[in-house]
Amino acid sequence: MTVKTAAIVGGGVIGGGWAARFVLNGWNVRVFDPADDSQRKVEETLANARRSLPLLADVEMPGEGELLFVDSIAEAVAGADWVQESVPERLDIKHTVYAQIQDHVGTAAVIGSSTSGFKPSELQQGAGRPAQMLVTHPFNPVYLLPLIEVVPGTATDAAIVERACSILTELGMKPLHVRKEIDAHIADRFLEAVWREGLWLINDGIATTEEIDDAIRYGFGLRWGQMGLFETYRIAGGEAGMAHFIAQFGPCLSWPWTKLMDVPELTDELTQKIADQSDQQSGAHSIGELERIRDDNLVAMMRGLKDTNWGAGELLNAHDARLRAAQDSARPVSIAAPMNILRTRVLPSWIDYNGHMTEHRYLQVCSDTSDRLLAHIGVDMEYVVAGHSYYTAETHIVHRDECAVGDEIHTTLQLLSHDEKRLHILTTIHAASDDRVLATGEQMLLHVDSAKGKTCPAPDSIIQALDAIAQTHRDLPRPSVVGRCTGGGG
Amino acid sequence: MTVKTAAIVGGGVIGGGWAARFVLNGWNVRVFDPADDSQRKVEETLANARRSLPLLADVEMPGEGELLFVDSIAEAVAGADWVQESVPERLDIKHTVYAQIQDHVGTAAVIGSSTSGFKPSELQQGAGRPAQMLVTHPFNPVYLLPLIEVVPGTATDAAIVERACSILTELGMKPLHVRKEIDAHIADRFLEAVWREGLWLINDGIATTEEIDDAIRYGFGLRWGQMGLFETYRIAGGEAGMAHFIAQFGPCLSWPWTKLMDVPELTDELTQKIADQSDQQSGAHSIGELERIRDDNLVAMMRGLKDTNWGAGELLNAHDARLRAAQDSARPVSIAAPMNILRTRVLPSWIDYNGHMTEHRYLQVCSDTSDRLLAHIGVDMEYVVAGHSYYTAETHIVHRDECAVGDEIHTTLQLLSHDEKRLHILTTIHAASDDRVLATGEQMLLHVDSAKGKTCPAPDSIIQALDAIAQTHRDLPRPSVVGRCTGGGG
Repeated sequence: MTVKTAAIVGGGVIGGGWAARFVLNGWNVRVFDPADDSQRKVEETLANARRSLPLLADVEMPGEGELLFVDSIAEAVAGADWVQESVPERLDIKHTVYAQIQDHVGTAAVIGSSTSGFKPSELQQGAGRPAQMLVTHPFNPVYLLPLIEVVPGTATDAAIVERACSILTELGMKPLHVRKEIDAHIADRFLEAVWREGLWLINDGIATTEEIDDAIRYGFGLRWGQMGLFETYRIAGGEAGMAHFIAQFGPCLSWPWTKLMDVPELTDELTQKIADQSDQQSGAHSIGELERIRDDNLVAMMRGLKDTNWGAGELLNAHDARLRAAQDSARPVSIAAPMNILRTRVLPSWIDYNGHMTEHRYLQVCSDTSDRLLAHIGVDMEYVVAGHSYYTAETHIVHRDECAVGDEIHTTLQLLSHDEKRLHILTTIHAASDDRVLATGEQMLLHVDSAKGKTCPAPDSIIQALDAIAQTHRDLPRPSVVGRCTGGGG
Repeated sequence: MTVKTAAIVGGGVIGGGWAARFVLNGWNVRVFDPADDSQRKVEETLANARRSLPLLADVEMPGEGELLFVDSIAEAVAGADWVQESVPERLDIKHTVYAQIQDHVGTAAVIGSSTSGFKPSELQQGAGRPAQMLVTHPFNPVYLLPLIEVVPGTATDAAIVERACSILTELGMKPLHVRKEIDAHIADRFLEAVWREGLWLINDGIATTEEIDDAIRYGFGLRWGQMGLFETYRIAGGEAGMAHFIAQFGPCLSWPWTKLMDVPELTDELTQKIADQSDQQSGAHSIGELERIRDDNLVAMMRGLKDTNWGAGELLNAHDARLRAAQDSARPVSIAAPMNILRTRVLPSWIDYNGHMTEHRYLQVCSDTSDRLLAHIGVDMEYVVAGHSYYTAETHIVHRDECAVGDEIHTTLQLLSHDEKRLHILTTIHAASDDRVLATGEQMLLHVDSAKGKTCPAPDSIIQALDAIAQTHRDLPRPSVVGRCTGGGG
């Protein structure tokens, strides 16, 4: 696979987030921003991304691309497959930047804008090749949040929209094709409505920033991480349906439940009031700390949604499956002695109060390893659904060394013995950095008829697959830990 | 502890959610609702709550209270400690109901209203004892979402507000004291602003219900499950601070980013359009299925936030700690032979593709059991922070039987042997229903100096605590599984 290149024009928080999303997905990235502190900011954002984005994946991510800071738009965009513009929100600046980009970039490149407010047709005014331009509006932090509003202008080529969506999907993101141009696209219109109402509540002394935030995050905010407004209300409407819900709650719209159009004047006094309240609420943490807290929370919530395979979690699972399929076809499980099976990373939730990977996660890694072996010999989901499986009867774990959050680990597997019902294996967990052994897990699995809950002989195809592995593994030394009992005897 | 009683007046989705929250926290509940299908609806809501709320706790919940359906307001409220009014949103109906409630309830009871729109002073008009009345506005599903807006009217007694907040905290909820009365309180003003904007977007053909929901749940909705509007923007403002952020983004407020005040006329055509789009988006699932999907997602996200100890997760952890402290003082860990240690429930995320509890969760239950033993002998957080701990060196798990999601399980622990450095224990996991053995976990733990990463002798206080347990356990038979190696030898 040839490495693709993204050009990031404008390297603030948003440009830095784009740079991180591309680099960690194996793209080469060239950043141009005239500001002195741009490189520091992009590198800080990349550091945040490195500690959080890989924790969302259950498969190995692609190797990192190369990150380069360049001195001109020309250097950034020459030969790029994707150009992402994230310069300040002034139309004259954007027009000047687009002219320079199009002087140096190829016609096949996607040119996306991070603009929150401008419509693509406004950006396209006076452009030489408006067909390759569109809005691709992200949400902070760009390296974690999947949503991208993809908004073509009237002059945008349909093939460019399609290519943009396909590339964003490859990056693990959720392209939302906004079919009609409108100021602020879709999501920011909601944020703006909430922001306006929040300012009024503070201005009128009804609530503080902290009270407003609590009103959001202990209530509807939790709902909105998984279902949106309409699906939530569909449930609230109950069996009577959505039309009934609207009939019931529509009238509220004419009641004085929002401050509506009026905007409070942003006096120095009001600005200071909000800043003071925010200090009171969050001042104990620096911005850097808050970023890491936020990222850890987002990872934890999105991993929760992976368990339920819903919304952002379903998206992440699909992305894992795509990556895994690509990796399996590039590097099929080999029956080498021992077999190299798994490569993963120690998640924050795997850490115990001693600061090390907690013991049951070692067994989880062993299970993930034996699951891959089982899939290889033909015990896949289809096989399980058809009524047979292998169940673990016994496990003996011996700890050798420790590992900490974020550490890369990998596993090897040795087939110790097998017969028509039994499968005796040893998983070894290694630190990826220096290959030292962290733990071993010796396991006895039994082939079962799931409905009867009894052991039964495995079919020939499975025995033959195990025979082939045994043939390769027969000369491997039998580690001293095998057959030992807890406390040292054997 | 005497069992408290809650009266639920109005038993729809909201009243049913309140009933479930109280019953599952050990309160007796009496429900009055004149509608024919009220009992069925409340029982369905309680069934949903039973399958999800206990999954948020890491401690045993109180035993369920008694749920009674009664035929009059008088029967419901007589002797109640809390009355929750959730009748239709019409002021004349509410005034009639309040008069009946106050004819029969004691003066010390809290009378809370679930009203979304009315101000407490409006509810208090003409009431005999307005001092005990206030708004306690919940969010659906009431049995899972922690937020309650507590809004006193001018005539509400401050002691009632305090009692309401204290009871809500005991129920594991987050009381948000709204200091000034305002239409729709706080959270619903935001929901209303978003709802209004959403209706415009659909009316104008910009987006469908599904597109709007995706714009929320893949983006800012994920942010809002853990931080609110202002803390999120504080981060976006970066090092320059909140005042800078407002100066930068304030001007957008005068741009046409929302449809603002105007309300689209809710014609039959628009109502049908929304209902059709919602069918398209969510019609594959019944309302009952959507409720369970939503609840599973909320549980998963909130459990994610428990791992990071933030927002709703921090609240849940504090609630666990309160329950655990109460249980420990009522039922301290006894050194009986064997020790009864843990009682818990099999979570949905503990289930593997075979439909059974996945193997590493057995080890998690063993770890949780040994943690309780360690805390009992003095190896608590303070001890660990001071530089010493016990690390697990080896584990031998033997599986005997299976368990499924929601099953209650409990553990017993036998001290096999100990010396100054070693601690050899056997945890047995039982099904709570019939006490049958599901699995055993034999473990060798070593006392370590954490900084040096080396074993060292445990202090006398710990050895004495272990001696006391050993004295009690010395006549326990040594189970045949002890000292056995994987595959059957020993």
